[in-house]
Amino acid sequence: MENKKIPYKIYLEESEMPKEWYNVRADMKNKPAPLLDPETLQPMTAEGLSPVFCEELIKQELDETTPYFEIPEEVRNFYKMYRPAPLIRAYCLEEKLQTPAKIYYKFEGNNTSGSHKLNSAIAQAYYAKKQGLKGVTTETGAGQWGTALSMACSYFGLDCKVYMVKCSYEQKPFRREVMRTYGASVTPSPSTETEVGKKILLEHPGTTGSLGCAISEAVEAAGNLEGYRYVLGSVMNQVLLHQTVIGLETQTALKKYGEKADIIIGCAGGGSNLGGLISPFMGEKLRGEADYRFIAVEPASCPSLTRGVYAYDYSDTGRICPLEKMYTLGSSFIPSASHAGGLRYHGMNSVLSQLYEDGLMEAVSVKQTEVFEAAQYFARIEGILPAPESAHAIRVAIDEALKCKETGEEKTIVFGLTGTGYFDMYAYQKFNDGQMGDYVPTDEELQASFAKLPKIN
Amino acid sequence: MENKKIPYKIYLEESEMPKEWYNVRADMKNKPAPLLDPETLQPMTAEGLSPVFCEELIKQELDETTPYFEIPEEVRNFYKMYRPAPLIRAYCLEEKLQTPAKIYYKFEGNNTSGSHKLNSAIAQAYYAKKQGLKGVTTETGAGQWGTALSMACSYFGLDCKVYMVKCSYEQKPFRREVMRTYGASVTPSPSTETEVGKKILLEHPGTTGSLGCAISEAVEAAGNLEGYRYVLGSVMNQVLLHQTVIGLETQTALKKYGEKADIIIGCAGGGSNLGGLISPFMGEKLRGEADYRFIAVEPASCPSLTRGVYAYDYSDTGRICPLEKMYTLGSSFIPSASHAGGLRYHGMNSVLSQLYEDGLMEAVSVKQTEVFEAAQYFARIEGILPAPESAHAIRVAIDEALKCKETGEEKTIVFGLTGTGYFDMYAYQKFNDGQMGDYVPTDEELQASFAKLPKIN
Repeated sequence: MENKKIPYKIYLEESEMPKEWYNVRADMKNKPAPLLDPETLQPMTAEGLSPVFCEELIKQELDETTPYFEIPEEVRNFYKMYRPAPLIRAYCLEEKLQTPAKIYYKFEGNNTSGSHKLNSAIAQAYYAKKQGLKGVTTETGAGQWGTALSMACSYFGLDCKVYMVKCSYEQKPFRREVMRTYGASVTPSPSTETEVGKKILLEHPGTTGSLGCAISEAVEAAGNLEGYRYVLGSVMNQVLLHQTVIGLETQTALKKYGEKADIIIGCAGGGSNLGGLISPFMGEKLRGEADYRFIAVEPASCPSLTRGVYAYDYSDTGRICPLEKMYTLGSSFIPSASHAGGLRYHGMNSVLSQLYEDGLMEAVSVKQTEVFEAAQYFARIEGILPAPESAHAIRVAIDEALKCKETGEEKTIVFGLTGTGYFDMYAYQKFNDGQMGDYVPTDEELQASFAKLPKIN
Repeated sequence: MENKKIPYKIYLEESEMPKEWYNVRADMKNKPAPLLDPETLQPMTAEGLSPVFCEELIKQELDETTPYFEIPEEVRNFYKMYRPAPLIRAYCLEEKLQTPAKIYYKFEGNNTSGSHKLNSAIAQAYYAKKQGLKGVTTETGAGQWGTALSMACSYFGLDCKVYMVKCSYEQKPFRREVMRTYGASVTPSPSTETEVGKKILLEHPGTTGSLGCAISEAVEAAGNLEGYRYVLGSVMNQVLLHQTVIGLETQTALKKYGEKADIIIGCAGGGSNLGGLISPFMGEKLRGEADYRFIAVEPASCPSLTRGVYAYDYSDTGRICPLEKMYTLGSSFIPSASHAGGLRYHGMNSVLSQLYEDGLMEAVSVKQTEVFEAAQYFARIEGILPAPESAHAIRVAIDEALKCKETGEEKTIVFGLTGTGYFDMYAYQKFNDGQMGDYVPTDEELQASFAKLPKIN
């Protein structure tokens, strides 16, 4: 296979698509710390989670030993509508950079939700339907997850209630219309529809909202509605599991052409894409079969890995969800409204946090304007207009390719291009007009937030 | 091959992609009527066209006998960045409709321009660059063409000036930002930058613009700038030629799986997608090798084939471009501003007009609300949120599939899904809010417009 000419885009055959998701926890020596009940501070049981989450998803959330979970046939059929996603060889970018590095990106934007979020949305909707539920509630920040879930719910005939972070709701009215087209209801968060929303509005009048706050509202709403559960698009282990379809396809595609990655790069907010992309490769590394450098890229405005602490923290602003041990900026941290796009969650998935703590993964943070420069550069060269989130990975992939140019090393760089920026043109406009700023939290801000961490660490 | 399981999405290999465009005029007995010089009313010569158009494109425009034109390697390399486009088997739609028909659609929306327009944009930019030009000017209506041309010009390092129909400019600020991200300048039309724009503004103060008017402005601007030419995204034969990459890929994909289309359906504005999709199949029909039903679908608000006349007409409002013999509503016809999306040109490409005149193709018109109903239905079932233009074809494909359900016939229906609706959410919002109306021109309006046709027919 070594000498087979590598096409611009590698599309697997349907028959080569993964039939199982991979659970990296099964290969981890140091398992992530358990979720804690916010009232008793004891490890959460399946029973304790069942009022909020779907049963099958709870099993996936808590399972640390089963390496593979079968992808249900109904989910695989839906995957076939927009997957396999192409692994693209960035020939034009390589040429422009004059780098000896080979650059590949796994592109997850070729579906109407515009991102990888659909991979987990359809799985979660499937299990909700299987459980006989009427509907689900969720939060959305930049809007990709809400859109993905709307599509998934529409497919399985479930009702879908989305709490959308207010600043995104206002900046992205068209995201809302996509969700409505798929039949979802969309409420700006914080809202007066929930107790927790009212409380937050009282304490912070005029707030533009946060993911942590929207999560609290969605969880409360699910609890108040008969036949509803809460689902979410990142942070949780179940989501990481579903997203491994990204990494598994990437692995198969590379193998097919005799390629071996040296560096694997992903943008990191809650960790859904990063975890999904790197898990199968991390498995190889954990089992001693291969070595890779993994780089998580986060925004300088919300730097949970690079400037956070590894500690138990609340996963939502209202403090009604389980506590997670994770790299966190503190659940009271809210990134500046001037930060465009997603990647604005205060913490990082617990599996990724543990891997980072164990030195198995690196992390860097990048500033917003550098990210949009990379986005524009990439768009003009590779054609695709990336989501701001994805452009974090582009930034660092370009930086690594330029290092190879310096050293002459022919490394193979793989990064995750999570989605498209078609609903982020408000942010692009700011950049085009030279009005985009860089916000970086001060040490004092972070210390103030850390001081509010729960006293159990 | 007959029994090979047909996947949801058929992707050709790079090696199976077309290396030549197909010129259907070579197989037509009745050739389309020649372009006429607007001043002398004599057939346009290559020399007469050269101040406005690129040389190679003029050759392609006028050539009625050469069946195949080589696709330059540079263009094929760019095609590889976003092509081959998938031919998708609409399994979910078939299932939902409970039809015995097999439904396929060729999806051209998997690129940042969001439509098939990029196929011709990159070819035109290539020839402009090859001729040593500095830049090009153009018009855009719904915005797909302008976006595509911006991307193509950015790739080849050409300057790009876009005149955007004012009502689209205002309803679609984000389309403008995509073009700016690719380095284009965008001016709402009619503008005060050109003489023809000023004249139109004087005659019709407060007009929201039209394609015919934006064309006039772009042509004037190209003439005033050293090293610039005018390019356009539809109506012309050269565009039809480049777009045959759609039909050629579709033909190869169907053959690969032993499938034979019975009905081929495309939406029709100026004819770029429809012509590109059907040309290779029409060639088979003209040569007596196979038979197909071809259906052009146009908006009831701009029904050039179904309610227009076959006559010489001006191709632009300012009457500075060559005259074309075509099915036309008259160059003074401007569709209602309540009509969403594209497909708002007053005439139809001359090749398609001749084929329609000769009874080789059918045409139907559909109302806007029926189109958006089909769009929403399709989005929920097949996942993809279609452009309003594309949804015209969806509407009729569904109608034909339902006829098969009545009769029990197992027909194979192929339609062109030209693009995505991500920049059309303003129109979707209107539909979601139940505020979308249907506008159909009255006979009196059309007669008034026909009365202004040039007196040479």
